[in-house]
Amino acid sequence: MGTPNGDNTQAAADSIKVVSSTPSAGPIGVFDSGYGGLTILHEMRSLLPQYDYLYLGDNARAPYGPRSFDVVYQFTREAVIKLFSMGCRLVILACNTASAKALRTIQQNDLPRIDPSRRVLGVIRPTAECIGSITHTRHVGILATEGTIKSESYVMEINKLYPDIKVTGVACPLWVPLIENNEYDTPGADYFVKKRIDSLLFLDPEIDSVILGCTHYPILLDKILKYTPRGVKIIPQGEYVANSLKTYLARHPEMDAVCAKHGRCHYLTTENKDKFRESARIFMHESVDAETISF
Amino acid sequence: MGTPNGDNTQAAADSIKVVSSTPSAGPIGVFDSGYGGLTILHEMRSLLPQYDYLYLGDNARAPYGPRSFDVVYQFTREAVIKLFSMGCRLVILACNTASAKALRTIQQNDLPRIDPSRRVLGVIRPTAECIGSITHTRHVGILATEGTIKSESYVMEINKLYPDIKVTGVACPLWVPLIENNEYDTPGADYFVKKRIDSLLFLDPEIDSVILGCTHYPILLDKILKYTPRGVKIIPQGEYVANSLKTYLARHPEMDAVCAKHGRCHYLTTENKDKFRESARIFMHESVDAETISF
Repeated sequence: MGTPNGDNTQAAADSIKVVSSTPSAGPIGVFDSGYGGLTILHEMRSLLPQYDYLYLGDNARAPYGPRSFDVVYQFTREAVIKLFSMGCRLVILACNTASAKALRTIQQNDLPRIDPSRRVLGVIRPTAECIGSITHTRHVGILATEGTIKSESYVMEINKLYPDIKVTGVACPLWVPLIENNEYDTPGADYFVKKRIDSLLFLDPEIDSVILGCTHYPILLDKILKYTPRGVKIIPQGEYVANSLKTYLARHPEMDAVCAKHGRCHYLTTENKDKFRESARIFMHESVDAETISF
Repeated sequence: MGTPNGDNTQAAADSIKVVSSTPSAGPIGVFDSGYGGLTILHEMRSLLPQYDYLYLGDNARAPYGPRSFDVVYQFTREAVIKLFSMGCRLVILACNTASAKALRTIQQNDLPRIDPSRRVLGVIRPTAECIGSITHTRHVGILATEGTIKSESYVMEINKLYPDIKVTGVACPLWVPLIENNEYDTPGADYFVKKRIDSLLFLDPEIDSVILGCTHYPILLDKILKYTPRGVKIIPQGEYVANSLKTYLARHPEMDAVCAKHGRCHYLTTENKDKFRESARIFMHESVDAETISF
């Protein structure tokens, strides 16, 4: 975590060097295209404070939401390789677009070649797992970026586990820019929030549970609740992803053993570090220092 | 231009090879972070149809508007070097953010080392030049991205030419996402358009001319006019940039001689080419094929 005297960047660099020379234990890598993954990281650190975390935001190339499969895969792959080179044995793609478009190819094609002992996990599977015990009507809605919706990853993951659930998704292309440009609390945001929730419930009025399938969306929670009828549950995924990580580490002691446990957290960004500190404030309750890196 | 049978990409590739092997004459390079530069290209081709153009959109890493100086400079430099390698002797940065943050450094530090005979021009100077004969009150407004406004490039360029003009700028951070996500014609867009125009005229009620300092903004023209009081002129820059290019080529016959003149136009993108074709439609009156490149 950021130290008051601002020495955090150097501390991060030192820590990374140490980690690289002792490949047996490293921080848990947490990757997002931008700042949204910080909401997931926050939940992980609340539940599992003993672990070391290394957050990487590809802020110079965000947002990934509207980008093609080719581009999301290439950028995500570069980030995963970078986190591996910095000592991470386990990387969480805390980004729904990256999880939807790049995770499977990285797991199946890249990992066996790079290092079969390392792991990359996403946020869609853990969110899909939780939904079975939440919905009563067996009608579930997904609000996410265009890339996540078009990939149909949520539909496939949920139906693999619960074939009886009907899943309907709606893309919310303007929600991330509203948040990243600090316009999420304005009357102008209301139009776009209401528009997408109305679309979703028009497509399937029996929906009783709505997954926020983008790590940014919890920031819009007040407005989302304002336009959602009573009785429809809104599900931000951070808590479920954190719980799923806890279960995963308990089930895989060999992976738990290579996750360093000093309670440290460091931040990397592809953007200017002052820009990162300024923008990360929307998502964090504290000010953090980051180190700028390139791929 | 795109051929009906879809052979354009191959034609572009062939043309580039030919151009590369005959460095004496090449297309005019037109660079933008995304799709907005297509509005500038359209005006150039209307006024100067005889020239060859090579458009490059860094769509995989757009938008540049909110990014730091370091990142905009690095990305723009890569694009300019790419266009040079493809035979361009003259490159227009048809992007206000790149012109504001990267042009000067590229002209002063990079060009002398790369090739002093080549030229890179921006869109801010030509727009600044035109304003002297348009404003009567000598109070001018700028609506642009956060990056362009923070750089103060318009203020500096206008005051270099017309020290008596008072320039006031307002950043419109959500306008580009509204356009690129095809939400520019919705009631939700009204709030954000009105908000920024009201801010600008509140800061200086004597403004009689407003420059649209982002190549995307002409797409929002109907709404911009709706919220601008009568008597305040709105100035999209495409026409002025095209006129300025015409004057530049007439004054620099040595540069005009190395600009190929077959009336061709090809498109490059860092994104998937199908994605480019789909998104470019908002800005073009025709469907175009692009070739995907990487730096």
